[in-house]
Amino acid sequence: MSSAPVRVGLIGLGTVGQGVVRVLKTNAEEIARRVGRPVVITHASTRDLGRKREVDLNGITVVSDAMSIAADADVDIVVEVIGGHTVARDAIMAALARGKPVVTANKALLAEDGNAIFATARKAGVPVAFEASVAGGIPIIKAIREGLAGNRISGLAGIINGTCNYILTQMTVKGQSFADALADAQRLGYAEADPTFDVEGVDAAHKLSILASIAFGIPLSFPAVACEGITRITAQDIQIAQTLGYRIKLLGIAKRGAAGVELRVNPTLIPDDHLLAKVDGVLNSVLVQGNALGQVGFYGRGAGGDATASAIVADLVDVARGLGADPRHQVPALAFQPESVQELPLLPISQIESCYYLRLRVADEPGVLKSLTGILAGHDISIEAILQKEPRGEDDATVALITDRVPEHRFNEALAAMQALPFVREGAARIRVEHFKD
Amino acid sequence: MSSAPVRVGLIGLGTVGQGVVRVLKTNAEEIARRVGRPVVITHASTRDLGRKREVDLNGITVVSDAMSIAADADVDIVVEVIGGHTVARDAIMAALARGKPVVTANKALLAEDGNAIFATARKAGVPVAFEASVAGGIPIIKAIREGLAGNRISGLAGIINGTCNYILTQMTVKGQSFADALADAQRLGYAEADPTFDVEGVDAAHKLSILASIAFGIPLSFPAVACEGITRITAQDIQIAQTLGYRIKLLGIAKRGAAGVELRVNPTLIPDDHLLAKVDGVLNSVLVQGNALGQVGFYGRGAGGDATASAIVADLVDVARGLGADPRHQVPALAFQPESVQELPLLPISQIESCYYLRLRVADEPGVLKSLTGILAGHDISIEAILQKEPRGEDDATVALITDRVPEHRFNEALAAMQALPFVREGAARIRVEHFKD
Repeated sequence: MSSAPVRVGLIGLGTVGQGVVRVLKTNAEEIARRVGRPVVITHASTRDLGRKREVDLNGITVVSDAMSIAADADVDIVVEVIGGHTVARDAIMAALARGKPVVTANKALLAEDGNAIFATARKAGVPVAFEASVAGGIPIIKAIREGLAGNRISGLAGIINGTCNYILTQMTVKGQSFADALADAQRLGYAEADPTFDVEGVDAAHKLSILASIAFGIPLSFPAVACEGITRITAQDIQIAQTLGYRIKLLGIAKRGAAGVELRVNPTLIPDDHLLAKVDGVLNSVLVQGNALGQVGFYGRGAGGDATASAIVADLVDVARGLGADPRHQVPALAFQPESVQELPLLPISQIESCYYLRLRVADEPGVLKSLTGILAGHDISIEAILQKEPRGEDDATVALITDRVPEHRFNEALAAMQALPFVREGAARIRVEHFKD
Repeated sequence: MSSAPVRVGLIGLGTVGQGVVRVLKTNAEEIARRVGRPVVITHASTRDLGRKREVDLNGITVVSDAMSIAADADVDIVVEVIGGHTVARDAIMAALARGKPVVTANKALLAEDGNAIFATARKAGVPVAFEASVAGGIPIIKAIREGLAGNRISGLAGIINGTCNYILTQMTVKGQSFADALADAQRLGYAEADPTFDVEGVDAAHKLSILASIAFGIPLSFPAVACEGITRITAQDIQIAQTLGYRIKLLGIAKRGAAGVELRVNPTLIPDDHLLAKVDGVLNSVLVQGNALGQVGFYGRGAGGDATASAIVADLVDVARGLGADPRHQVPALAFQPESVQELPLLPISQIESCYYLRLRVADEPGVLKSLTGILAGHDISIEAILQKEPRGEDDATVALITDRVPEHRFNEALAAMQALPFVREGAARIRVEHFKD
């Protein structure tokens, strides 16, 4: 094996790209001690050549054309950190076509187009590494794909969007409204000017589909993820949940059962003594359930230039060490050998089973609870906890309850029946509940 | 690459060995989907051939001689789970001499003899995998060695002995004495009849030396670990710590600073809102600090047959996939290329800096606090918190305090000066404190 430096072409010089430049320089000696030779960025591309960067680009040939990086004969490995679909996809495909391994943080691209990208990489006999695509610097891809390889994984749940976790934490700690907490997050740079992808759960759904694929050995199935964001969570629901012993988190949840696989992103009540409930602010955390190990958990920084760069450089070390190796010894991109990746039935959301938190505004009159509990009993739904709050002044009363496990369609039927009652006001809140029992 | 089954020789059919048999059978299909071919145990050895096992040994040639497994031409990979030094070491060395990769859970052997074992493996061009040696099924070796490869790791801290964590948890939750909690742990099978290795911190020190080696790129340095167990922890100290906002855990701590590396196992006060403080019972957890990622944490089952087997089988999947691969592409056993493993100065315990918890019994008379705080001030030691408990009946008073960071030798000098005071009784308790600030 050569001792010449490994030459990296970096597509993108935004926050993450600059993080990669900085981490590779700062830790150059450690990285060379790990790989056996230096790993250096020789080429980089950016749309905005004139912009001043906070990192030292000395020694790096900076160009405006991403495709030229992918095509450059002097680049051994291509790192893609521009995000998006068009240029990123073209550059990745071009690099693979030239036999160059690729490292990417692009969860949206992989979730939506990964099956084709991994097939191309396989034909080329080179890896596409993507540790940075989920949960920033937490090595969750490697942990699930390799570290838990002895297990049949039955499910996983994760706080995998730092923006939503920051907003929900602020709403919990400060009693803020969603709108106020979002505005704070935007001011601090934790949320984009257009926060839709984060707060509607789309980003988490991208990441969840990647995790589910490597956990279960199924193709990437982003369109099948049932996705619900946090925009309708109120400070009142967070406060009632706390009274009942729960915290509200946006979770990505993947489960594999006899009937099929369920994939969903939704706000979730979780017991406040559970470790996931303690993961606050922009931290990420993932919990995995395996049949040999039981539950295992991971937490750390899910975003930020250097944390994401940590994962990209870890991939670079793996890929650099494997340059020139026989591809038959590679870890398969999606954890399972490509011919063993299997489609499994994906459950529609109406078929999933869950516990539910329900909050209703009701007129303050006799017999209300009797009618509501009667409807639940009539739909064979047990109640785990119930809370009635008296009206203040001329307000309506509030009834909140937590049910036992029930299929979603049956819960919805009961909810519709309750909402048809004359004393039930508009504006019910319904949030799923997870207890993470083994 | 052949599609014939990978043939595993298993040395040891105790709790962990039976776990390996069970997990490989239960998850045979998943594992074959990952590796690309089946992984099967063809040979096993046990000292006690007549003993009835709970697992199905059908199809496995069971023998009494461990060395015959290591020598068998029909065995592709050797798994060693007997523990101890003599037979385990001989069998591992014999397997390596025949070019067979080895998977082992033997932390004591690796901590004390690993440098020689890894050198032998390197010459033979085959891996020795040891994920199961630390923190059971938590993939912490892989996470530090590969997942955090982009970081310069400055320190780590872990709850890496389930027996001690169970005992301390019981003492905290039930107010039990150490002796009573130990007796319960023994009754439940969480502690050995002779618990010395666990409760004196030796087992944790073995594991810590392995973690420190792969985190810092230093040789295995077990003899340099300063080791203090939990036998002198009292229910009173646990209760006072709680009052001050702390929990007491046995931690393995490794830090790398300008002056050198510190390696120690000791009971530690940690803030009760820290995630490590929530890791109770027999669970393990490790926190790692990297310069790119910041803090990242891992938790899960640190012991038990199936949890440990989870890690062994993960290693088997890695090793099986790499059978016949060019060894230059292997991940180095100790994370860094062998020629890059560097001795660093190892600090004696007197040189380390820490915050301290101190509890003293003192006569109930005027001027006591003034004298004590005067001595601390005279040694340039700041006080973070202080608590004085009035005597009940004819008892002495209790003074407990938490100091700021101070070098150990200076704290010890102040403590000696305090203990020389006429009103200070025998039996001071001194426990280190960690705040895990970034």
